[in-house]
Amino acid sequence: MTTPTIESNTPATTPSGESAAGTGRIILGRNQYGKAECRLVKITRDTARHSIEDLNVTSQLHGDFESAHTEGDNSKVVATDTQKNTVYAFARDGIGSPEQFLLRLGKHFTESFDWVTGGRWQAEQYFWERINDHDHAFARNKSETRTAVLLIEKGVRHIVAGIQDLTVLKSTGSEFHGFPRDRYTTLQETTDRILATDVTARWRYTPDATTADFNAIYASVRGILLDAFAQTHSLALQQTMYQMGKQVLEAHPEIEEIKLSLPNNHHFLVDLEPFGLDNPGEVFFAADRPYGLIEATVERERDGASSSEAAIWANIPGFC
Amino acid sequence: MTTPTIESNTPATTPSGESAAGTGRIILGRNQYGKAECRLVKITRDTARHSIEDLNVTSQLHGDFESAHTEGDNSKVVATDTQKNTVYAFARDGIGSPEQFLLRLGKHFTESFDWVTGGRWQAEQYFWERINDHDHAFARNKSETRTAVLLIEKGVRHIVAGIQDLTVLKSTGSEFHGFPRDRYTTLQETTDRILATDVTARWRYTPDATTADFNAIYASVRGILLDAFAQTHSLALQQTMYQMGKQVLEAHPEIEEIKLSLPNNHHFLVDLEPFGLDNPGEVFFAADRPYGLIEATVERERDGASSSEAAIWANIPGFC
Amino acid sequence: MTTPTIESNTPATTPSGESAAGTGRIILGRNQYGKAECRLVKITRDTARHSIEDLNVTSQLHGDFESAHTEGDNSKVVATDTQKNTVYAFARDGIGSPEQFLLRLGKHFTESFDWVTGGRWQAEQYFWERINDHDHAFARNKSETRTAVLLIEKGVRHIVAGIQDLTVLKSTGSEFHGFPRDRYTTLQETTDRILATDVTARWRYTPDATTADFNAIYASVRGILLDAFAQTHSLALQQTMYQMGKQVLEAHPEIEEIKLSLPNNHHFLVDLEPFGLDNPGEVFFAADRPYGLIEATVERERDGASSSEAAIWANIPGFC
Amino acid sequence: MTTPTIESNTPATTPSGESAAGTGRIILGRNQYGKAECRLVKITRDTARHSIEDLNVTSQLHGDFESAHTEGDNSKVVATDTQKNTVYAFARDGIGSPEQFLLRLGKHFTESFDWVTGGRWQAEQYFWERINDHDHAFARNKSETRTAVLLIEKGVRHIVAGIQDLTVLKSTGSEFHGFPRDRYTTLQETTDRILATDVTARWRYTPDATTADFNAIYASVRGILLDAFAQTHSLALQQTMYQMGKQVLEAHPEIEEIKLSLPNNHHFLVDLEPFGLDNPGEVFFAADRPYGLIEATVERERDGASSSEAAIWANIPGFC
Repeated sequence: MTTPTIESNTPATTPSGESAAGTGRIILGRNQYGKAECRLVKITRDTARHSIEDLNVTSQLHGDFESAHTEGDNSKVVATDTQKNTVYAFARDGIGSPEQFLLRLGKHFTESFDWVTGGRWQAEQYFWERINDHDHAFARNKSETRTAVLLIEKGVRHIVAGIQDLTVLKSTGSEFHGFPRDRYTTLQETTDRILATDVTARWRYTPDATTADFNAIYASVRGILLDAFAQTHSLALQQTMYQMGKQVLEAHPEIEEIKLSLPNNHHFLVDLEPFGLDNPGEVFFAADRPYGLIEATVERERDGASSSEAAIWANIPGFC
Repeated sequence: MTTPTIESNTPATTPSGESAAGTGRIILGRNQYGKAECRLVKITRDTARHSIEDLNVTSQLHGDFESAHTEGDNSKVVATDTQKNTVYAFARDGIGSPEQFLLRLGKHFTESFDWVTGGRWQAEQYFWERINDHDHAFARNKSETRTAVLLIEKGVRHIVAGIQDLTVLKSTGSEFHGFPRDRYTTLQETTDRILATDVTARWRYTPDATTADFNAIYASVRGILLDAFAQTHSLALQQTMYQMGKQVLEAHPEIEEIKLSLPNNHHFLVDLEPFGLDNPGEVFFAADRPYGLIEATVERERDGASSSEAAIWANIPGFC
Repeated sequence: MTTPTIESNTPATTPSGESAAGTGRIILGRNQYGKAECRLVKITRDTARHSIEDLNVTSQLHGDFESAHTEGDNSKVVATDTQKNTVYAFARDGIGSPEQFLLRLGKHFTESFDWVTGGRWQAEQYFWERINDHDHAFARNKSETRTAVLLIEKGVRHIVAGIQDLTVLKSTGSEFHGFPRDRYTTLQETTDRILATDVTARWRYTPDATTADFNAIYASVRGILLDAFAQTHSLALQQTMYQMGKQVLEAHPEIEEIKLSLPNNHHFLVDLEPFGLDNPGEVFFAADRPYGLIEATVERERDGASSSEAAIWANIPGFC
Repeated sequence: MTTPTIESNTPATTPSGESAAGTGRIILGRNQYGKAECRLVKITRDTARHSIEDLNVTSQLHGDFESAHTEGDNSKVVATDTQKNTVYAFARDGIGSPEQFLLRLGKHFTESFDWVTGGRWQAEQYFWERINDHDHAFARNKSETRTAVLLIEKGVRHIVAGIQDLTVLKSTGSEFHGFPRDRYTTLQETTDRILATDVTARWRYTPDATTADFNAIYASVRGILLDAFAQTHSLALQQTMYQMGKQVLEAHPEIEEIKLSLPNNHHFLVDLEPFGLDNPGEVFFAADRPYGLIEATVERERDGASSSEAAIWANIPGFC
């Protein structure tokens, strides 16, 4: 392999500024810009019993920004610093839920600037619990991260909520067998294995769900995902995953579809025979890489067709 | 904020197994599965002068896997372990380039199993340089990561190559002014600032480029990106980014479009006045978060329309 | 700055193999080796109600390994792979507590090999909670990591336990004023700020505490640290930290000393005045870097002198 | 395992504020505090050809800070914010080398405040290379990090320099055999394996080396470490490590001792026999965890005794 150096190659081809014939005029395509990862902590202290909301907010605008790209003309570039300031200023009136906060931001930017036709606003939320029911002392619960995305395109608001990195494990109740065997297959079948994963899910709300109780739905979806994982006797991680998504949709008509991405966190039974010991499902090596990766959308059929909106998901980082 | 506990909520709604009326039958949508992050090091040792190829390979299959999800029937589930074994077995015959290696994998899986209709294969490549021109001693060059994705859909092979986390900085030659000011704008205009970013780019090859010299093109694209960053007097990071993409397309007709994602790694001039010192562009605080994030596609116009293929990009993690 | 290249400098000085006069004979000093980060998951399944212990174990041996260094003679080098195997084999008989598990490992290695005179064994423990009180389904509690170190030197066993990355925050009840001001001081005094930190603590047990109930003490120390953080009205993070350590020692005579390392996770009140808004302690920017770092030992006075054992702490990574 | 909850345990033991009889009076032991990770970028722009120095600086003070801990009295607490300001102000006059910059900081703090008797100042340095020999455009070389620590104790300045995470690999020229075999040994002997590691080294300068050319010595040590790794035919990683340290000391009388910490980055030969393929040292799986970890000090003998200063190393994070 030729290794990289800092010396760059000057291409001996078409001069800059003039496109080659037959290769198509070079144009600006999709674009967005904004301020990423504004770490925002909001304390509500109306009474002696404080509450805390802890977010990581990203604001990105869509619209007519062509001249900034082609000419360096910033007359329409709402500075990313301005977007950040707006996030903090809007927090003065409270958060409520990540989704509601993003809806306020999206409305502001699309209504304040003619040329801003849409955008993508994202938030992560981190959880805190009271220490001993204290009024103003908290410990962070790091077991998961809540996520929210608002995408505004062509005047329509699309809301995608999610949960991330919720790590779960079953010490039994998981099998894997009956898979095809070819020249490259060495895996043994098993009727009892550890099943472990980090749950990452994203669910899209129906378009009319902009006033839903997003906090309550989050808590409910989280509970259903945990329940379905725990209760499903698993013949394949795919089966467990599908049950998790299906039960969410069954319980929540305001959710149109849900995507799950589940690594198979392999726990390999250690062979203790060389040491004269048995190992009846007791001692495991928890591996890092490689890992299985199982991903699917669970959605609704509407008029015989999928209700999934691929164009929206194309805007949700990391999910297809 | 109600904080999460491990107690899950049992939803008081529709019983499992039966979809609610009016909410659409629940079905399986897009799905894929496979083995992620197979760390593969290939030593070529035909002569005393060894060479090294260092990859991180992910294989994911698309096809008819519905019964695994709905019934736990694994009869079509080519085990992720089998996919991993295949990666290592195929490496015995050499790598060549990440793209060529992925093409071999994709051909194998889609031709070997009727129900595998496509898939997504990805690789990261890490670079090594010889120590003092030694025959078999190397030091890793960590300045960047090379990436490659092969997407096979409906019989068509789509190849997207990329570069990741190439960190660059200009200590002058960057301005930012002329942006709109509103109630939330506090940023001062500047005619001289540090411009710094971590270049992440993905470029899609034309469909007939499956036999291109991917290693040579990678080296060329890398060089052009560096050159364009260095040479462009920047009025906006958008302008620099567009130049980077445009010059790549001008030099490489085999590249149909390129996407760039550039954080603005802020370097804030420190106010030394309180200490009786001036600071003429010499002392900077390098900030972590928040950061600007500037993203765009540079593409070709074909018959008056964009040549970008959104459906493909929807399958490339992290790029829309 | 001259930048590094892979070309190395051949030093134009003393030839290899012969030490320069006046610079002292070159010898091997302190050394240790072993296997790091053996990820071990132990399921106890005597009944239908399983329990889980999740550890990351590192084993390192001290002793006479000079010839391996000077001659490549491995006749005394208990392979790191063997150390790993021993960890997994010993887990077959259960863990109990990280400290008890490390004591078994240390005893084995020092008694099995004449030339192994001591060593350092470490473990991290990760916590899991039952999902809905399920018998074999768990969700990981990531809010903290428990740590344990066993150091055997000159026949004495030293046990140091710890907690790591327990993130806490008080939204009021913290002041900072009265600090000295010099030419470089710009910080304003405050009588109400957010106080937030990630608690990392290590406590050393008295030498005779090898049969203590380490799990119960861990739970107690954790509770005291949280309580002291919550209850102390803070005039300085130093004061809060000292209270945390002091209250642990007061409650636990079997603990000889405790070290705390507390970053000051700065939460800066955002100036909303430019936007026509007040900000009475409600909206904060949570900063990443730089951060304050406050560290101390709280220990016992014995016969008028410190009871801290610096030589032991020199072997505990990251604590001095 | 009893899992943690946020409810803390109120210890049913000694009341706070009063030490238990027989357990020793509780006192404050070693302590230090300051500002960590001040990210500092210094551009030198005296001419059109700029240069860049990129540091991460931590300042921590030692001295009489007892009343801050016991009473919350901040009258001697030089604010960590003031320490940060001082770092940036001092950078106005240039960096030179990390060691020289830290020496200036240490002198300032110990001379400016009577009660500051010493401290620990640390820096990481990151490297940049010119893009195509450009005057003000740079790409970061991430292949390693340079480190420096200044410890001032009892009026003496101790300087420890280092290199971190320099990843190297030999594709042959490494053996491992002749190790003892016990009940837990399963590892096969080998006469040809991949040897790979991430070099982390720290070297302590002799006390009179405060005016040394630290940049030149760094470049030389780096070169020697690479050369020794490449040139040593390895029978054990211990042997390679010792050669690396020994050759540094031989070439540099101003270095009193050097500590190395080398993970054994395992590359396992993949068994391709099940697939009907041989694997003559060509296809490897690069593993993450667990890994071997080999650590030693190479030092000088002075008057028949070790010249290593354990008390200093106890203050260098991560090295014992």
